[in-house]
Amino acid sequence: MNKVLDFQSIMLSLQHFWADQGCLIWQPYYSQVGAGTYNPATALRVLGPEPWNVAYIEPSIRPDDARYGENPNRMQMHYQFQVILKPDPGNPQEIYLRSLQSLGIDPHRHDLRFVEDNWESPSLGAWGLGWEVWLDGQEITQFTYFQQAGGRLCDPVSVEMTYGLDRIAIALQRVRGFQEIRWNSSITAGDVNLQAEQEHSRYYFEIADVTRLHQMFDLYEQESAACLEKGLVLPAHDYVLKCSHTFNVLDSRGAIGVTERQAYFGRMRELSRRVADAYIEQRQRLEFPWLGESTGTAVPLSLAGKPSVAPPTMSVAAPFLLEIGTEELPAADLDNLIGQLRERIPALLGELRLDHGPIRVMGTPRRLIVQVDDLSSSQPDQEQVIKGPPADRAFDLLGSPTKAGEGFARSRGVSVQDLEVREIDGGRYVVATVRQAGRPTPAVLAEALPGLLAALRVDKSMRWNSTNVYFSRPLRWLLALYGSAVIPFEFAGLSSDRLTRGLRFVEPESFAVDSIPAYFDALEAQGILLDISKRQELIRTKVAALAVEVGGSIQDDLALLAEVTNLVEAPAALCGSFDPAHLKLPREVLISVMKKHQRYFPVEKDGRLLPYFITVTNRSRSDARESELVVEGNEHVIRARFADADFFVREDVKHSLPDFLPRLGTLTFQTRLGSMLDKVHRVTRVVRDLTVQLGFGADEAAIAARAAELCKADLATHMVVEMTSLQGVMGRYYALRSGEREAVAQAIFEHYLPRFAGDILPQSRAGLVVGLADRLDTLLGLFAAGMAPTGARDPFAQRRAALGVVQGLIAHDLDFDLRRVLGDVVAPSLPIPAGEDVQQACLLFIIERLRNLLLEQGGHYDVIDAIMAAQGHNPASAARATRQLAAWVSRPDWNTILPAYARCVRITRDLEVRYPVDPVAFGEVEERQLFAALERAEQAPRRPGAVDDFLSAFLPMIPVINRFFDTVLVMAEDASLRQNRLGLLQRITSLAGGVADLSKLEGF
Amino acid sequence: MNKVLDFQSIMLSLQHFWADQGCLIWQPYYSQVGAGTYNPATALRVLGPEPWNVAYIEPSIRPDDARYGENPNRMQMHYQFQVILKPDPGNPQEIYLRSLQSLGIDPHRHDLRFVEDNWESPSLGAWGLGWEVWLDGQEITQFTYFQQAGGRLCDPVSVEMTYGLDRIAIALQRVRGFQEIRWNSSITAGDVNLQAEQEHSRYYFEIADVTRLHQMFDLYEQESAACLEKGLVLPAHDYVLKCSHTFNVLDSRGAIGVTERQAYFGRMRELSRRVADAYIEQRQRLEFPWLGESTGTAVPLSLAGKPSVAPPTMSVAAPFLLEIGTEELPAADLDNLIGQLRERIPALLGELRLDHGPIRVMGTPRRLIVQVDDLSSSQPDQEQVIKGPPADRAFDLLGSPTKAGEGFARSRGVSVQDLEVREIDGGRYVVATVRQAGRPTPAVLAEALPGLLAALRVDKSMRWNSTNVYFSRPLRWLLALYGSAVIPFEFAGLSSDRLTRGLRFVEPESFAVDSIPAYFDALEAQGILLDISKRQELIRTKVAALAVEVGGSIQDDLALLAEVTNLVEAPAALCGSFDPAHLKLPREVLISVMKKHQRYFPVEKDGRLLPYFITVTNRSRSDARESELVVEGNEHVIRARFADADFFVREDVKHSLPDFLPRLGTLTFQTRLGSMLDKVHRVTRVVRDLTVQLGFGADEAAIAARAAELCKADLATHMVVEMTSLQGVMGRYYALRSGEREAVAQAIFEHYLPRFAGDILPQSRAGLVVGLADRLDTLLGLFAAGMAPTGARDPFAQRRAALGVVQGLIAHDLDFDLRRVLGDVVAPSLPIPAGEDVQQACLLFIIERLRNLLLEQGGHYDVIDAIMAAQGHNPASAARATRQLAAWVSRPDWNTILPAYARCVRITRDLEVRYPVDPVAFGEVEERQLFAALERAEQAPRRPGAVDDFLSAFLPMIPVINRFFDTVLVMAEDASLRQNRLGLLQRITSLAGGVADLSKLEGF
Repeated sequence: MNKVLDFQSIMLSLQHFWADQGCLIWQPYYSQVGAGTYNPATALRVLGPEPWNVAYIEPSIRPDDARYGENPNRMQMHYQFQVILKPDPGNPQEIYLRSLQSLGIDPHRHDLRFVEDNWESPSLGAWGLGWEVWLDGQEITQFTYFQQAGGRLCDPVSVEMTYGLDRIAIALQRVRGFQEIRWNSSITAGDVNLQAEQEHSRYYFEIADVTRLHQMFDLYEQESAACLEKGLVLPAHDYVLKCSHTFNVLDSRGAIGVTERQAYFGRMRELSRRVADAYIEQRQRLEFPWLGESTGTAVPLSLAGKPSVAPPTMSVAAPFLLEIGTEELPAADLDNLIGQLRERIPALLGELRLDHGPIRVMGTPRRLIVQVDDLSSSQPDQEQVIKGPPADRAFDLLGSPTKAGEGFARSRGVSVQDLEVREIDGGRYVVATVRQAGRPTPAVLAEALPGLLAALRVDKSMRWNSTNVYFSRPLRWLLALYGSAVIPFEFAGLSSDRLTRGLRFVEPESFAVDSIPAYFDALEAQGILLDISKRQELIRTKVAALAVEVGGSIQDDLALLAEVTNLVEAPAALCGSFDPAHLKLPREVLISVMKKHQRYFPVEKDGRLLPYFITVTNRSRSDARESELVVEGNEHVIRARFADADFFVREDVKHSLPDFLPRLGTLTFQTRLGSMLDKVHRVTRVVRDLTVQLGFGADEAAIAARAAELCKADLATHMVVEMTSLQGVMGRYYALRSGEREAVAQAIFEHYLPRFAGDILPQSRAGLVVGLADRLDTLLGLFAAGMAPTGARDPFAQRRAALGVVQGLIAHDLDFDLRRVLGDVVAPSLPIPAGEDVQQACLLFIIERLRNLLLEQGGHYDVIDAIMAAQGHNPASAARATRQLAAWVSRPDWNTILPAYARCVRITRDLEVRYPVDPVAFGEVEERQLFAALERAEQAPRRPGAVDDFLSAFLPMIPVINRFFDTVLVMAEDASLRQNRLGLLQRITSLAGGVADLSKLEGF
Repeated sequence: MNKVLDFQSIMLSLQHFWADQGCLIWQPYYSQVGAGTYNPATALRVLGPEPWNVAYIEPSIRPDDARYGENPNRMQMHYQFQVILKPDPGNPQEIYLRSLQSLGIDPHRHDLRFVEDNWESPSLGAWGLGWEVWLDGQEITQFTYFQQAGGRLCDPVSVEMTYGLDRIAIALQRVRGFQEIRWNSSITAGDVNLQAEQEHSRYYFEIADVTRLHQMFDLYEQESAACLEKGLVLPAHDYVLKCSHTFNVLDSRGAIGVTERQAYFGRMRELSRRVADAYIEQRQRLEFPWLGESTGTAVPLSLAGKPSVAPPTMSVAAPFLLEIGTEELPAADLDNLIGQLRERIPALLGELRLDHGPIRVMGTPRRLIVQVDDLSSSQPDQEQVIKGPPADRAFDLLGSPTKAGEGFARSRGVSVQDLEVREIDGGRYVVATVRQAGRPTPAVLAEALPGLLAALRVDKSMRWNSTNVYFSRPLRWLLALYGSAVIPFEFAGLSSDRLTRGLRFVEPESFAVDSIPAYFDALEAQGILLDISKRQELIRTKVAALAVEVGGSIQDDLALLAEVTNLVEAPAALCGSFDPAHLKLPREVLISVMKKHQRYFPVEKDGRLLPYFITVTNRSRSDARESELVVEGNEHVIRARFADADFFVREDVKHSLPDFLPRLGTLTFQTRLGSMLDKVHRVTRVVRDLTVQLGFGADEAAIAARAAELCKADLATHMVVEMTSLQGVMGRYYALRSGEREAVAQAIFEHYLPRFAGDILPQSRAGLVVGLADRLDTLLGLFAAGMAPTGARDPFAQRRAALGVVQGLIAHDLDFDLRRVLGDVVAPSLPIPAGEDVQQACLLFIIERLRNLLLEQGGHYDVIDAIMAAQGHNPASAARATRQLAAWVSRPDWNTILPAYARCVRITRDLEVRYPVDPVAFGEVEERQLFAALERAEQAPRRPGAVDDFLSAFLPMIPVINRFFDTVLVMAEDASLRQNRLGLLQRITSLAGGVADLSKLEGF
């Protein structure tokens, strides 16, 4: 084993490595930046068409990651090493892996993986797709193909690699945390940086002055804009960076509210966009001076040799194999692509008229495989009859071909003699019978395969090279064998060949295969399992076995299992442990960290977590020594992550939950709606009001009120600031620790329910009511502030909020007049006016969610619309009514019920006046009978909004109505007679009031 | 020749070099800093006792150096490489020079020099002594021994080296400017940084918003203070850096006035001081954890071997040689030290009773040499007679010794028998004769030499190692030979030896000498001229010869010649040329650049500059090829410097001089006194007033008024912002280019005169008056603002201003009542009240300068005081009167004149009433005679303030006065008689009114 590099040697080595790759070695930026990406050497140079290859160290400042120096690898400052390769050299992953080896990281002894990660910088208006690179479970690099920057498409795409130098050093030197990193032979990183960590942490979390920082932000923004007005790119960018850092400090200080965040991002993004535009314009004015130059060490686009130009031919059916070699695909994309291929391949072969045997589609993160047995050697021959001009125009009266006839024959490649005359659609036409010989399969496939690949689609796709082809991740090789011959085609700059690649780091990594069996043999020899279900089963078995070894078991989690299956080619499982002391953390926290962050399987026993985790890796040339290294690495990661959670919880429980309330005062909910504390006050008022209206008992009302007071307190806790998804969970946890009643704690948790589609709903009415008050305040408040969602834009998740309102009410079957609550309770509590039009818009928005929900549940749109029109403002009642009406509509006698009611409506609906009914004034017996029936119906006992009650009452009237219309002339000459009759019918139509507008129904 | 390093390789190589020296390799700071010094790795780590060795790159931002990318080597961002060695390793210069060699700089082919430079950072409260390192005339490194930082003494001292990487690259790659620096194989520094230079230049000079930047400064200051209150060092320091950068931008924007600058520095220094205190306190709390560790590669304090412990002995006189080896001494210190040695050595040898032959004291920048011929081998023996107690107390009546006698004998080391009795001063005492054997010279010298060295003093001295000895620059070796033997002693951690060092880069650099002649031979062989006058003569000859070669000559400049002589050991001269196009720049600019910045001799012909310069270097193993390199380097430097001046003038003459006036509005003169434009308005008003009072003709008044309007306009020009010493010079130049009258231009120039002691004075009355108005406004204004100078503190040079007032008035012999002008003209024009007490304080301050001036001119203090008391407010008149009075005082009959006048004064001076004189009431004839004499004297024609006129008129009264006192009883019983006589005498004393207060004279 070589001498282990010290920290400064790691930095110098990487610079030498990338200098040797033709990169310009650049310097850290003179501004506090969250990442090397913000350095203009990245943020600007990735824009525009010019080539650019650069590498530099960037000490990166992330106030949010400050941990008082207590976390092993999370610090307010970490050392990044940033590399930009533009354009894509074709093999950036391989160059990158060599750079790790140059540092002494032996990939045979470690677990190195590319784990899907999509990167986005809202303040830079930039995003890209790529991976986190994991070393033994630890993220050591962010690897991204830049798709957009400054709001502009990147063309060409840049490859960005951002190394986390501290973490690499920790792993290389096998130390327990950043403090122990040996910087040089006598000084550690702790020696030189621990004090800074402690001090800056205090500054960012406790001392930074919110008012002054807000002022700084404004000044920077103005100064940036002033620079842009004069066309100055770099000074403007500098101020964007200062805005960004200042925002980050405000954020870690807890002074940025949810809705304010968007506004801040918007301001920064706008500046970034203008900076980007100005930069590109400037380079254009200079005529892109670097365009001619070749920099860096681009490898030719096609790594494979030239394809053999002519497709081979065969005489008998043979197997076909297509391997699409990729850089690591996201787990979901892999499933999706396999699905598409399974659907598309048989269809394609059908279209191509190629007979075939069984088809198998398989895949791993690095390859998609299509295997077709017995693919016929060519298409069958085919005859086609082509219609020509009418016979009398193709031949003259003497039967000789005319010019038209000759022309048609020539155009179809037949002789005039071979034209025939046929009767088609009652006319007589000449026809040519064209015989097409079936083409050999290789030629057909060579033509068809590019189209197959081009048609594959994923949710988020990307470009990487000058072909600007879109795919999930870059394609790096194409293997296409028919029998043992290559089907030659090109796609995305690649030429198909017989070359494949093995498992990373297992020799040989790249090799040619003579035949399809040889291909499968070779991959199998390396342990690669191409079949997803086999891989999944193997993983399940291995994980379960390891769990048993430590005396526990694994709870089923199909999503996790499926994801993990798509992350490896040759699965192995390893079990690591963590300090049992961490088990005192809330279970949700532990599980969330293990599954979401690390894709670990938690180990349980009797419903309680054990201090173990199981991780799935690719196999290596495994021996105990090596797994030990990998396990050690993973344990380091989980230790750091749990230490982080520990840190948060420890900090948090220094205070009781109510202690956090004042800090909500510095958390802006929305500029015009005030702070989060203001919101809590409003919610509490609204809850008090609602519990009275809903007739809660004193105890339940007290629970709801207390829960309302505390419902947002956990937003100011470290743990929630760090993992927003734990809001409510931590609220409950901290409430219990603060001595609140169980029911209050539960209501705090429940008021967030449902958090996502398919989530559980609040069980307690207290939780329900707090959630309602919270959501209605948000909805009406944002509508009043002019921030209603538009089109596809819903940045504050108002749709989900409205849906939550509706789902909760339905689940509790709670009658609740939204119209009234918005108008009488919520609107008056807001600090800004929310007039009737705003209330109406908000109500309609909620009703629209209700409508969608009912539609999703299988309701028919006309039934739903009929109910919505009458009682959409009361979702539980509306849902009930919808079910009832749906049943009525499907009754066999519905076609007698609806028409009877409809007749009453149609004749009266355009009237602008309601006429009184005078029983004495009726002329005909049928009138009187109808009036009597009406009075009976009106007196029938009815529950508000109930369709059943209404229609049951209406049912006896139907024959009377029909008779009435048969015998009585409603539109009598005599006005008083006529108005009396219309009044009678109006009262009948009123029976449906508050229940349904039946005119919305089909057949009305 | 090896491959020339590209820029990034230079950076990497230096990092490797210093890593190999044990330095921690650190990173650039995440803040805009003017120099690597501001990085906490320097600014803080140099504080306190802990060792620290670090090296890092620092891209440094200096808005003031922005040149729109047009200057070859002056940029708003340059790349520094910073090294800190703490403590001093003993040979930092040598390590540094090796680092240059590691970059491929061959010291045999270049001129490498250490040129005195004292570094100070007012905002950091830091200073140190050291050098600029010149490579062929170009400053490539700042090399400093830190004496103080954050207002605290540095103990131990740190060695700081700050490389200018861009300039090193320019020299190494032999390119013409930063734009052409090859960063890597395909990209130049211009490619990546030119745009930034252009944009940031525009931002700093044209766009930065002054109001917003002022706000930022205030916010940063407050935030820093908030951090300090909580004991946070690094966050506080970060904000100091932001203050500093913001200040720099404001400054380059021209928004910081002369007096405001001090206030800003004060604010930043105060913060820096608090940061430093907090840092040291923090490290102390941690118990200085690095104190135990040895870092870096310290060489042992004493480079020489152990001294032979016992001094040698000799039997005959022998020559003595002392060489004090130093790092490069400042030119003035070298002269000073040689002077001290010339005085001290003979005195010392006398004190030591050592006979000697001729003494020679010589020196070069790297050594002080004392050579003594025929130094006797030992002190002569010595007899000393010591007086004891009276004889009758030492011996009893019987002649036997008493206890007292025995005690005395014992105390002097003689036996009682050897005591003698002698008559001394009329008494009889016992005496002891003590014989002291002369000690051998080596022992005497070994004892005395440390004291000799310790007593040497220079104006600015420094410490460098743990001995904390102060000297001009570090002592690095001591050679002390007596004959051929070493005189062993220790000083400042060094042991004397027979080792000396040769000329840098000439082999051997360090060697032992057997004898004194061998020493001289060896140095001479390397071309070192130890004798200053010989060196000077050689330089003069060489420079003159080179000037003749290009058809010109050199104007005598003894100061420059003396300085240059002290910068080299083995002089050589080289002639370089520059683009004649630069000759259109003002002569003062060219000369100033060549002499002050570069120590070049300008070449002239017929009073006009030629496009050549001559530089003096150390000899190297010269051939044409090498001088060519050195000349090329020097030409590059002067090109860059002239380009800079060209740039400024070109920018400036885009506008006429009056165009600059509005910008003075943004230049704060002093917060309470308003902007520089306000000041100009005041000065103009005052000038108009004065020209009326002084009876200027219309034309002269118009000239003065116009000059007043424009007198400060050049402060807003680039050239003056850059070289403040050119203020007035550029004003005159730009005025002429703007079409102003010659006399106006001249008055603008002259109003600054005198600029320094010995400078010329204004010739025109217009220039004089504008200067007076300007200075009086400054003086009274600052006094009114409470900013009068105190003790040694005179940050706004008010002493010089007051002296200027006085000198100008005297030179023009212009009667001018300062009291009246301050009260009636200047005070009313100020924006703040300047009441009588303030006016009085200001007047006294000016009079004090006048007094000092007259004293310096040889006046006697009593004469001066006599005049000051009566007419100090009118300096010209006072000066005249002083000369006259001095003449009178030295007249042989003065002892009759003064007493006569004095008698009149003494008898009346305590009266509080002035009595009227009634000629009718005189009783005696002598009274009437005296009155008649008085009336004649009073009627004699007299010029105001003239001593001659007064005393000439008084002279005839003397006998009359004497007679009067002899015969008349002034203090008569009769009150009216008495008062009449007193009134008469009072009128006599009044004759001196406004002329002198003769009571201040000696003998009064």
